[in-house]
Amino acid sequence: MPPSRSTVRHPPVPPEDNEVFPVSEASPTLPPVPHAAPGFPASRPRQGSSDKYVIGIDYGTLSGRAVVVRVSDGAEVGSAVTEYPHAVMDTVLATTGAPLPPDWALQVPADYVEVLRTAVPAAVRDAGIPPEDVVGVGTDFTACTMIPTTADGTPLNELPGYASRPHAYVKLWKHHAAQGQADRINELARQRGETWLPRYGGLISSEWEFAKGLQLLEEDPELYSRMDHWVEAADWIVWQLTGRYVRNACTAGYKGILQDGAYPSREFLSALNPDFASFAEDKVEHPIGALASAAGTLSAEAAGWTGLPEGIAVAVGNVDAHVTAPAAQATDPGQMVAIMGTSTCHVMNSEALREVPGMCGVVDGGIVEGLYGYEAGQSGVGDIFAWFVENQVPADVSAEAARTGLSVHEYLTERARHEPVGASGLIALDWHSGNRSVLVDHELSGLVVGLTLATAPHEVYRALLEATAFGTRRIVEAFNDSGVPVTEFVAAGGLIRNSFLMQTYADVLNLPISVIGSAQGPALGSAIHAAVAAGEYPDISAAAGAMGRLQRAAFTPDPGRAEAYTALYAEYRELHDYFGRGGNNVMRRLKAMRRSALSVSSVQAVSA
Amino acid sequence: MPPSRSTVRHPPVPPEDNEVFPVSEASPTLPPVPHAAPGFPASRPRQGSSDKYVIGIDYGTLSGRAVVVRVSDGAEVGSAVTEYPHAVMDTVLATTGAPLPPDWALQVPADYVEVLRTAVPAAVRDAGIPPEDVVGVGTDFTACTMIPTTADGTPLNELPGYASRPHAYVKLWKHHAAQGQADRINELARQRGETWLPRYGGLISSEWEFAKGLQLLEEDPELYSRMDHWVEAADWIVWQLTGRYVRNACTAGYKGILQDGAYPSREFLSALNPDFASFAEDKVEHPIGALASAAGTLSAEAAGWTGLPEGIAVAVGNVDAHVTAPAAQATDPGQMVAIMGTSTCHVMNSEALREVPGMCGVVDGGIVEGLYGYEAGQSGVGDIFAWFVENQVPADVSAEAARTGLSVHEYLTERARHEPVGASGLIALDWHSGNRSVLVDHELSGLVVGLTLATAPHEVYRALLEATAFGTRRIVEAFNDSGVPVTEFVAAGGLIRNSFLMQTYADVLNLPISVIGSAQGPALGSAIHAAVAAGEYPDISAAAGAMGRLQRAAFTPDPGRAEAYTALYAEYRELHDYFGRGGNNVMRRLKAMRRSALSVSSVQAVSA
Repeated sequence: MPPSRSTVRHPPVPPEDNEVFPVSEASPTLPPVPHAAPGFPASRPRQGSSDKYVIGIDYGTLSGRAVVVRVSDGAEVGSAVTEYPHAVMDTVLATTGAPLPPDWALQVPADYVEVLRTAVPAAVRDAGIPPEDVVGVGTDFTACTMIPTTADGTPLNELPGYASRPHAYVKLWKHHAAQGQADRINELARQRGETWLPRYGGLISSEWEFAKGLQLLEEDPELYSRMDHWVEAADWIVWQLTGRYVRNACTAGYKGILQDGAYPSREFLSALNPDFASFAEDKVEHPIGALASAAGTLSAEAAGWTGLPEGIAVAVGNVDAHVTAPAAQATDPGQMVAIMGTSTCHVMNSEALREVPGMCGVVDGGIVEGLYGYEAGQSGVGDIFAWFVENQVPADVSAEAARTGLSVHEYLTERARHEPVGASGLIALDWHSGNRSVLVDHELSGLVVGLTLATAPHEVYRALLEATAFGTRRIVEAFNDSGVPVTEFVAAGGLIRNSFLMQTYADVLNLPISVIGSAQGPALGSAIHAAVAAGEYPDISAAAGAMGRLQRAAFTPDPGRAEAYTALYAEYRELHDYFGRGGNNVMRRLKAMRRSALSVSSVQAVSA
Repeated sequence: MPPSRSTVRHPPVPPEDNEVFPVSEASPTLPPVPHAAPGFPASRPRQGSSDKYVIGIDYGTLSGRAVVVRVSDGAEVGSAVTEYPHAVMDTVLATTGAPLPPDWALQVPADYVEVLRTAVPAAVRDAGIPPEDVVGVGTDFTACTMIPTTADGTPLNELPGYASRPHAYVKLWKHHAAQGQADRINELARQRGETWLPRYGGLISSEWEFAKGLQLLEEDPELYSRMDHWVEAADWIVWQLTGRYVRNACTAGYKGILQDGAYPSREFLSALNPDFASFAEDKVEHPIGALASAAGTLSAEAAGWTGLPEGIAVAVGNVDAHVTAPAAQATDPGQMVAIMGTSTCHVMNSEALREVPGMCGVVDGGIVEGLYGYEAGQSGVGDIFAWFVENQVPADVSAEAARTGLSVHEYLTERARHEPVGASGLIALDWHSGNRSVLVDHELSGLVVGLTLATAPHEVYRALLEATAFGTRRIVEAFNDSGVPVTEFVAAGGLIRNSFLMQTYADVLNLPISVIGSAQGPALGSAIHAAVAAGEYPDISAAAGAMGRLQRAAFTPDPGRAEAYTALYAEYRELHDYFGRGGNNVMRRLKAMRRSALSVSSVQAVSA
């Protein structure tokens, strides 16, 4: 196994986000201070006091980060990041060097344990607190990220003779090779009128438990039969910490199709594939743990890895986006929390159960106990901006940015912000990575219209920023139109550091935008869940009130710009429906042509 | 007046073209040789022989170039270029520093004379021939480029007290400030069912004589009344050479709405503006000279400027694109000649008079006497590729191109050429500079669809190359569908040096592409006209046969690629009609929003 890399960072910004909108960080010679947004003074632990602490661990796509948080007020007093030694395996299986098919994305479970061994103790050292003052641990994970295990939780890739079997590894959320299975599931569910289908906006994703599980069965049946549990990584890591397997209510609902206490029926699964008939009962079904409750306590083994006291509370597993809601004090009905990074995830609670076309899902207690939790998303946001900077910014612009001491993102933003709405004459569709909500179609692609010989790079950049804001407005309108009104828009994630982007969202949505007061919302959210699981607060709402941080109405819409954007948004809607709802399926045909062309590439190329 | 710059170049490539697809030129230490395409050996004059020579002078947008051509075989034996001292005045009037409104483009007539004084003698010196061996001069000019003059041909800007009046100067072809007048002309002509309107594909352009003349009347009526002639620059330069004003049949037909011997009627003009009623008879009407006939002989004054013998033949004026047809030996019906540079102009002869929707025009004897000459065009081609290279190519690509010793255009082409048709998943509309044919709409704009996070710069570049080929196919189909079939496609202009682009055109059009054997087709074409005017050949066809150069079927379509492109072209057609024919007028609305936004810019910008 390659050596792991554990580093202490101030502030511990997710590496993906760091590539987009990097901020000027404090000089490394200054004493380390936790990152705090304006209005939220940094705190240091009072040495020798009787303060209690919790640890939140946020498992991202490329790394895991641990943050030490004070129970009394949510102050983030120390942190550390560990990058996964095997990162993402999407071209070859790192252990054997064997090539992987297109659209695969695997990980190695042991890498997650490495975060416990390295990032957690480093964060505690960074905080300068005695480990005995830590009273609980909470975790959040990417989802849907699935691990095939034996009855005792051993990942199948760790069994003798299984290291060379791709299906024995973790299928990361962005493993997209089960689209064929997802298509069959959706088609059959539509035909049979399965009542759970509308709970997912009418379509389930190839990323989720059943599609990935069916792919495993059909491509490696022997391994499927050897698998005792098909486990969300969010639950597997809690299993490692506690020695107990508890299935969390969030992923069971959003990714595991658990609705009204039941999974898809045996008849349904059998119709998909006779050998899949008992998938739910044999591989997936397991007792559910409510969010923010304790899954168990820290085992002796895990105490050894982390240096934390044995027996402290470990919260039920959870998902990065969903734990961020309490970190932003935004768990009330109508508060839509958008976690804006390379992609954006939207979560919102409601007292009402409604069917919102194109949402990712609605789950009873999916975000907090007692409310219906809704989820939606945009599959490309910050990564579209990063793609643009990497692929469409000319040398003179990069050089000028460097000369002025700005990142290219900052420089383009500064150039763009002074121009009035509509001045570029451009409009874009933000589908470079497909469309998650409300069209749920990854065969869609990006579009820019209005280009002229006078079009400058910062104008295209701004059009892309605006396109993501229009995409968000489309989602907000879908909720409003479905009887689940959005009354407040709360922004979290790496992109909140771009004030022009935030102002643009306020103007496009014509809503005030509140902003989370933490640069590491998921880790803070996991810590809040840990505090409730440890009994330090009676419920998530109370914990969020004391430990969460929100700057209310940090950005308010300008009436003139909001009106101008409404006109531009009308153009977005028309293009959205034309290209996204069958008016012209050119995007799907172009992707099909691309696949076909690349499969016969040697025949058609113009010889040199 | 600023000093003029006259330089001898080998090969004398148009500077605009030089920016796109620069070629590796021979070392300047080698003896100068005329540029010759493969298969066309370079020639040097046989000193002391009795060879006769003609001079072709090509007046472009930024410079005039003179080429010395041997009458017997068309060998280009010497050349020189003079850049216009005042270039294009499109922001301020150079003589006064006064700002100009948007969309204006003016020039100074004396700059054209400077070409006669400098480039012509330099070309003769470069050729190393005795000036007495020159028997004729031919010219071609940009069009429609208009000069207001007194009765003796003095440009109004040279009159005392008129130097500060913008309307006293040359209105260059790309002066686009008469769109309002053009719109009124078109609307009225449609209402009245004017029979000349279909001869121009249903729309006349703001670039042409009547729209520009009406603008002059309405914005500076005093100057309009002082103007005796509204003269094409193509004819004005011949007037300077001969002392005689002869109106050429080409611009009179294509730009001056002379059809079947008549201009638009007094009633029509009066309905536009009562003061415009006598515009045709007073300002425009003048005896017509057939192309390739002699307008007169070289005056003593012009002989003094040029160093050429007084009394030699001077051909009737002509247009750059149209003179290129005989230079490419392509004056037969069905031979479509495309002069491909920053923009593309298509000219073709036919024995039939037909109405081709969206063509620029059809003129009896407009290219050669005795045939109907058709013209169409694409307003942006090479300048779209240049815009892309300047605005959307990242630093690492430019650096890699430099490292490998290639221009960015060459490097992107090399990267793109090896990929199969459709592999990028992209398609573009080539309307960054509007659409001349067949939509005749400069409110249209460019579009790229199919962008993903995997899209690389060379893929977008290739999509733009392909889009211009699709635009050409659309034009060819319009001719085919109107009973004027295109049987051969002949390419000329700077872009022919990109063999991948040429092959792409062959594949997209599914036609063999013949290529002109000269890098300076217009100047060679003007020289051919001079030879006929001098009586060295009986007609243009005979002269073209002896002096023109064509490489037949230099590029032939690949059946597999042609088939794949037919599928992609179907997508182009659908997007073309959707955005260009009213399916969604978003492009027009975006341009209107842009104009509106820029007029209230200070109100709506996000403050820093």
